[in-house]
Amino acid sequence: MNDTGNDEYLLTPGPLTTSLATKRAMLRDWGSRDKAFITLTARIRQRLVEIAGVETSHVAVPVQGSGTFAIEATLGTLTLPDAKTLVLVNGAYGKRMVVILERMGREATVLEWPEDEPVDPGSLDAALGADGAIRHVVVVHCETTSGILNPIEAVAEVAARHKRGLIIDAMSAFGAIPFDGAGIEFDALVASANKCFEGVPGVGFAIIAKDVLVATAGNSPSLSLDLHEQWRGLEANGQWRFTPPTHVLAAFDQALVEHTEEGGVAGRHRRYSGNCRILIDGMRRLGFETLLAEEVQAPIIVTFLMPSTPGFDFGRFYDGLAERGFVIYPGKLTVADSFRIGCIGRIGASEMRQALAAIKATLTEMEVGDLAVTSA
Amino acid sequence: MNDTGNDEYLLTPGPLTTSLATKRAMLRDWGSRDKAFITLTARIRQRLVEIAGVETSHVAVPVQGSGTFAIEATLGTLTLPDAKTLVLVNGAYGKRMVVILERMGREATVLEWPEDEPVDPGSLDAALGADGAIRHVVVVHCETTSGILNPIEAVAEVAARHKRGLIIDAMSAFGAIPFDGAGIEFDALVASANKCFEGVPGVGFAIIAKDVLVATAGNSPSLSLDLHEQWRGLEANGQWRFTPPTHVLAAFDQALVEHTEEGGVAGRHRRYSGNCRILIDGMRRLGFETLLAEEVQAPIIVTFLMPSTPGFDFGRFYDGLAERGFVIYPGKLTVADSFRIGCIGRIGASEMRQALAAIKATLTEMEVGDLAVTSA
Repeated sequence: MNDTGNDEYLLTPGPLTTSLATKRAMLRDWGSRDKAFITLTARIRQRLVEIAGVETSHVAVPVQGSGTFAIEATLGTLTLPDAKTLVLVNGAYGKRMVVILERMGREATVLEWPEDEPVDPGSLDAALGADGAIRHVVVVHCETTSGILNPIEAVAEVAARHKRGLIIDAMSAFGAIPFDGAGIEFDALVASANKCFEGVPGVGFAIIAKDVLVATAGNSPSLSLDLHEQWRGLEANGQWRFTPPTHVLAAFDQALVEHTEEGGVAGRHRRYSGNCRILIDGMRRLGFETLLAEEVQAPIIVTFLMPSTPGFDFGRFYDGLAERGFVIYPGKLTVADSFRIGCIGRIGASEMRQALAAIKATLTEMEVGDLAVTSA
Repeated sequence: MNDTGNDEYLLTPGPLTTSLATKRAMLRDWGSRDKAFITLTARIRQRLVEIAGVETSHVAVPVQGSGTFAIEATLGTLTLPDAKTLVLVNGAYGKRMVVILERMGREATVLEWPEDEPVDPGSLDAALGADGAIRHVVVVHCETTSGILNPIEAVAEVAARHKRGLIIDAMSAFGAIPFDGAGIEFDALVASANKCFEGVPGVGFAIIAKDVLVATAGNSPSLSLDLHEQWRGLEANGQWRFTPPTHVLAAFDQALVEHTEEGGVAGRHRRYSGNCRILIDGMRRLGFETLLAEEVQAPIIVTFLMPSTPGFDFGRFYDGLAERGFVIYPGKLTVADSFRIGCIGRIGASEMRQALAAIKATLTEMEVGDLAVTSA
């Protein structure tokens, strides 16, 4: 067992490795109407708007479930049945938002790029100029599909210039990728406790502009996922409308303390960037190739192209690493066969070096010689 | 701190007091695609259909979020836009299901009874005979609003005779109230980890007839809450479609072990019935009156009428009990001013007697004399 309480490190985009203190915060039961728990919820909400730099203009509304639940809740609460939403797609998470909108009967239109290219603000500018019916623009900050960073500041500038609302899926970004909420205009930013904040899974949240949220009563086709009512309930008496995942929230509260202790977004960005640098340099020395160019690689998760070397079998590679205490992630790309290794969670330089040693040992065990990658 | 790891006992309908072992199961991080976690999910699903007695005919489909999320997911997946659903209402949870259906644009019709009366199968029979457009009947097994037990066997018999699908909200019942799934016809039964199974909050589930579920592709207006796709995903590779609350599920797994060790539904029913008996007898000796007649009182949560004695202040009563380590619950009735005390969670005869002693001490401290209750 390592000092996070685990037998293995999760080098994935989540669920990820959390600190032992974060998990130990779950060792008591909270009454959801208790003053202590109401205070805990309020503290989390306050901290989130502070981290985003939008204490006066926005509110944080937590919602039960995975990140996708928070995304769906935000889209259902903010978009309207008779208005079009433009989704910028360069990966699976952008595509999923289109499916969510279509399921709830809301019109979605798409601008799409290959998974290894960032979205292009110029194309967005043209699309918004050509279609006045588009009311919202949706963009993914860091697309976990590839690990690519999208230029949300430029996207926000274009959306604001055309006076359209911007919804940011910042699931694998918020908390570790610098975000100047006061410097850009956005209707909502959505993320979860279980990514860069290193909490446990079970709760997500949206940070929503107050002047937008106040006008969304009755929009949501879902009662459970109605963020307007969720917000009204929390504002009224500090309580959740429906049973909150109390233990998960206690863990999130502790994880936010640790985030602050590390120096907030800047501190966490520094550690993840260090992890990412060690990982990429080490993997290249072993003969692996990254999918993405350096300038668009976020320090969150790295996609490696699958080696074409005879004898390299991904199943054996995965199992060999798991036996050595490191869990990696299969690829999700459509453009190339690949696998992914995460840089996030309660891991640092030492763990990344151990992971590289485990990768080297696994390759030796598999008796593959020099790695080769056939470009996609 | 007591032996559940808490400073206080939660005498509420949930979140409730869980065992220390259940909480300690959350002290590690699980990869959601790991074999061990896939096995854990499968074990939970299998155990749930066994407990319901429907291993061959039904499947258990877990879903992230609170019990209300599982209810909404089931209604959205099983009902159809062009078909009417009849909701039997004798409390807030029945009413909430009407709101859920209306939000998603599905037609709901209602049969309603006062909160202190069970639903009446005879009225249901007449309603179904009069309206052939009703396709589903929805009933709450134990209405947490009052603590009343509804006659679901008789309701199921009527629904089956009219060939309508039955959806049972068994949130505060399944796991502790005897349920003979093989002896009745039902399309779905919905509950959560955090009630009679004594897990932590964050996941619910529906036990759905396979022949019904297979025909529900595309029904759900919500991607996150689509139980057909959730089921297809779990059947395909054992994995959840979207990040599961891994720690909450690990706790649920342990809670189910403890449920089995206690003798399953029969054992848990015995303990809760004992708790309920001690509570009601003790409260009556102190001068309190129950809302419900004995024959319709479920051993889950008991509603007491608010004493009209001068000097009895509920805020002081609640706080006095909390200081003594017992958290109770405010009332939710529309028919009478009341409060509620739960019999469920990791508590037994000893804790119920301690609670009664704390209530007596609080009354003494409040200097109220003999209690009187003005009947509603």
